Amino acid sequence: MEQGAGERIETVSLEQILAALKEEQWAQLAELRPQELLEHWDELSEEDRARLVAELPPELAAELLANLAEEEQSDILEVLAPPNARAVLEELDPDDLADALQALEEADPEHAEAVKSLLGPEVLAVAEALASYEEEAAGGLMTPEFVSLRANMTVDHALEFLRRASPDAETIYYLYVVDRENRLRGVLSLRELIVAAPSTQIGDIMDPDVVRVTTGTDQEEVARIIADYDLSVLPVVDEEDRLVGIVTVDDVLDVVELEATEDIHRLGAAPVDIDYARARPWLLFRKRVPWLVLLVVSMTLTFNVISHFEDILAEVVVLAAFIPLLIGTGGNVGAQVATLVVRALATRDLELRDYLRVLAKEIGTGLMLGVAFGVFVMGYVLVFRLEAGIALALGITMLLIALTANLVGASLPFLFRRLGIDPALTSSPGITTIMDVVGLLIYFHVVIWVLRLGPGVG
Amino acid sequence: MEQGAGERIETVSLEQILAALKEEQWAQLAELRPQELLEHWDELSEEDRARLVAELPPELAAELLANLAEEEQSDILEVLAPPNARAVLEELDPDDLADALQALEEADPEHAEAVKSLLGPEVLAVAEALASYEEEAAGGLMTPEFVSLRANMTVDHALEFLRRASPDAETIYYLYVVDRENRLRGVLSLRELIVAAPSTQIGDIMDPDVVRVTTGTDQEEVARIIADYDLSVLPVVDEEDRLVGIVTVDDVLDVVELEATEDIHRLGAAPVDIDYARARPWLLFRKRVPWLVLLVVSMTLTFNVISHFEDILAEVVVLAAFIPLLIGTGGNVGAQVATLVVRALATRDLELRDYLRVLAKEIGTGLMLGVAFGVFVMGYVLVFRLEAGIALALGITMLLIALTANLVGASLPFLFRRLGIDPALTSSPGITTIMDVVGLLIYFHVVIWVLRLGPGVG
Repeated sequence: MEQGAGERIETVSLEQILAALKEEQWAQLAELRPQELLEHWDELSEEDRARLVAELPPELAAELLANLAEEEQSDILEVLAPPNARAVLEELDPDDLADALQALEEADPEHAEAVKSLLGPEVLAVAEALASYEEEAAGGLMTPEFVSLRANMTVDHALEFLRRASPDAETIYYLYVVDRENRLRGVLSLRELIVAAPSTQIGDIMDPDVVRVTTGTDQEEVARIIADYDLSVLPVVDEEDRLVGIVTVDDVLDVVELEATEDIHRLGAAPVDIDYARARPWLLFRKRVPWLVLLVVSMTLTFNVISHFEDILAEVVVLAAFIPLLIGTGGNVGAQVATLVVRALATRDLELRDYLRVLAKEIGTGLMLGVAFGVFVMGYVLVFRLEAGIALALGITMLLIALTANLVGASLPFLFRRLGIDPALTSSPGITTIMDVVGLLIYFHVVIWVLRLGPGVG
Repeated sequence: MEQGAGERIETVSLEQILAALKEEQWAQLAELRPQELLEHWDELSEEDRARLVAELPPELAAELLANLAEEEQSDILEVLAPPNARAVLEELDPDDLADALQALEEADPEHAEAVKSLLGPEVLAVAEALASYEEEAAGGLMTPEFVSLRANMTVDHALEFLRRASPDAETIYYLYVVDRENRLRGVLSLRELIVAAPSTQIGDIMDPDVVRVTTGTDQEEVARIIADYDLSVLPVVDEEDRLVGIVTVDDVLDVVELEATEDIHRLGAAPVDIDYARARPWLLFRKRVPWLVLLVVSMTLTFNVISHFEDILAEVVVLAAFIPLLIGTGGNVGAQVATLVVRALATRDLELRDYLRVLAKEIGTGLMLGVAFGVFVMGYVLVFRLEAGIALALGITMLLIALTANLVGASLPFLFRRLGIDPALTSSPGITTIMDVVGLLIYFHVVIWVLRLGPGVG
C-alpha cells in the first residue's frame, strides 16, 4: 500500500526553505505552494513559522494558517502585530476566520480585541454568527458564501449576475434558488445554467427536490448524506428552512478522516482529543491514564477470582500455566469480532435491527472457533503428557471461552449503540479485560466439574 | 454523536416499497431517489431486487447497480436478459461499467459475452482500457470523462464548445489544457472561464502549475494529495504525461472510508477483505481463523514460560493470582500507545524520521504510567496483607511491564513501516500476545531477584 507515489509533484526540501529563510528571500518563498511549506512545518522553529506568516503575501499566509491546528493558530497570531494579523485574517474563508478568532480569544483576549477592532464590522458579524453554531455540526462546518438566485430570473440574467458577483471557485458550481423569505426552493448546477437557452427561466430548469440539512445536524450525519447521495455540495438551512450556508465535499473529507481517527482511538482505549505527534509526555500521561486506571481496577477482579480458587492451583499447579493462553485467546477472539461489528455499525452496514441476525451468525462462528481451538489445546496438552482429564477440562474451557468472547464482542457494540453511547467505546482493551475475568470464572468452574476438584470435593 | 439528524430528508418506508412492488407500481417506484431504495436494499428479496433493476428506468437502475458490492452486481446482471442488462450498463459511468463487466465476467463468462456483444464497440473499448489499470490505484479510480481545451482557444470559443459538448455535471468544473500530443499543460476552472472577458486566450488565464498523479499512484496517496491540496478534481496522466482521466473528490471519500475500515480491521486482527454484514458463519470462520491461529500458537509460549518457573508458583501460590493483572495491563498499555502511533503514521502526522522523538517521549510517558501502576499494585498487595517483599516485587514488575509495553507498542508500528508493512498490522491482539509472554518473563525474573526464590536459591 505504500508506494513512492506523487512522483510528479516536485517539492522543495527543508534545506532549501531554511536557506531562503536565512537570506530572507521572501519572493522566492512566496512562489511555493502552501502544501510545500506545510510539509516541513513541524521541522521549522516557532520563530521561523511566525516570520513566514508575517512576511509572506497575506493570501499565502492565510492558506498556511487555515491548515494549522487551533492552538498553533493562536500561537502565531499572538506574536503578529495587529495590522499584520488583520491582513492575514481578512484572507481567510469565513468559517476558518471564525475558528481562528475563537482560538485567539481563548489564548489572549486582549490581543484578540486589538485585532478585531481592525477588521470590518461585516466580516466580524459573519464570523460571529458562524462561531455561534455547534462546532461538530453542519453549522460549524458550513461556509456562508453561496450563490442564491430567484426562480423568475432568466438564464442570461443569472449568468450576468455571476459574472458581476464573481464568487469563489468552490461555491459557484451549485446555485440555490430561494424565495422572498430566503427559503430554499430549488437547486441548479452551473453546468445546467451554461447549457440552457439564455431566455429560459431559472424556475423551469431548477430541481425543486433539494436534499438539505439543518445547522444542528451532526457532522458525521452530514458526511454520510454527502457520501450516500454522491453530492459535491450540501445546503444548510435554519429552523425556518431559510438557506444559511453550504457544506462542500472537501470539508467532509476532513470530517471522515477525523471521525475515523476518533473511532480508531476509542477502539484502542486511547484518548480522542489529542494531537499525538505534538503532545508532550505529561499531557500524554494525563490523557491516557483515566482509561488505563479503569482497566487496571477492573482487572484486579482477576486476582480475586484466582485467590478464591487458590486451593485448586495449590493442588494442581500446572493449571496455572494455562491461564494466560486461555484468557488471552478469549480477549483476542472478542476484540476481533468487536472490531468488525463496531466498524459495520459506524458505516451503517449494520443497524440496531440487525442484532438478532448477528447474534445467530456469531453463535455459529463462535462454535466453530471454539471447537477448533478446543481441539488444538487438547492436542497440545496431550503432547506435554499431562492427564487426559486436564486435556478434557482445557478443551471444554477453550470452547466455552471462545464462544462467550465471540458473543460478548458482538453484543456489546449493539448494547452501546442502543444506549446512545459510541459503540467504539467497546475497545479491544475493554473486551480483553472483561474476558480475563469471565475466562477465569469459566476455567475454574469447568476444572471443578471435570476434575472433581475444589473446596467441597478435594 | 448520534442525533436524529437529516430530519428534512423525507424517506420512504420498507412497507411502502413492498406494497408498490406487489402491485407493480413501477411509475411510483421510479420517482424515488436511488438512496431511498438502497436504504432498504438488504431487506428486499433477491427476486425483488432483480425485478427493480429490470423494470425501473435504466438511469435509475444504473444508479442502484453502481452502489452495490461487486458480487451483488453480478448476481443481478446474471438474471437479467442481455438486452435489459445492456440498457442498464450503458447508463453507467465508464469506471463503474468496467467494474460491473469485470464482476459479471468472473461470475458467468458466457452471459458476459452475450451482454458485451450488445454494447457499442467504443463503450467497450473505454471500459476495457479502464479495466487494465490496477484497481487500488489512480487508474482504477479515475473516470476518462473530462473536458480538455487548447491554449490558443478564446474564452468565447471554449464556452461555445462546452455548450455543444454538454459534458457531465461532475466533470465540467475543471477544464484541462493539453497540447497536440495530449500532454497536460494547464488547468482552469469553469468559474474562471465564466468571469473572464470573452476574447481572452485560454493560455493566458490557465494555471500551468497542475498537481497530477500517474495511473499507478496508490489510491491512498491520491486521497492524501486531494485532501492536502484541497482539490475537487485531480488529473491523472500516463507515463508520457498524457492526460488520461480525472479523479473527483467524491470518489476519494469512499477511498478514505475504505482505507479507514482496513486500518481498523487490521488493528483488531480482523480480516480486511470481508463484507461483515453479509458474510455467513463459515466464511467468517475461514477469514478470521488464520490470525487467531497465529495468536494462539504464539500464546502457547506463555505455557512454556510458566511451566519453566512452576517451582516458584508451587512455593508461593499467591504469585499466580497476579499473573492476569500484570500481563493484561501490559497488553492494554501497549495496545493504547500502538493505536495512537499507527493512526498518526497513517495520517502522516508522524513519519519514519520522527522515531527517536517518539521513543524519547514514550520513555517519559511509560515511566510515569509504570510508577503510577506500580504504586497502585503495591498498595493493593498491602491491603490484602501479603508480605512486603511480594509487594515490592509486584511494584517493580508493574513498572517494568508498563514501560516495556509502552516502548514495544510505540516501536513496532515504526518497524513495520520501515519494512514496508502496514503499521496497522501491529494490532491490539498482537501487542497483547507479545506482552503476555514478555510480561511473564519480566515477572518471574523480578520475583527470583527480589524474593531470592527459584531453582538456584529456594
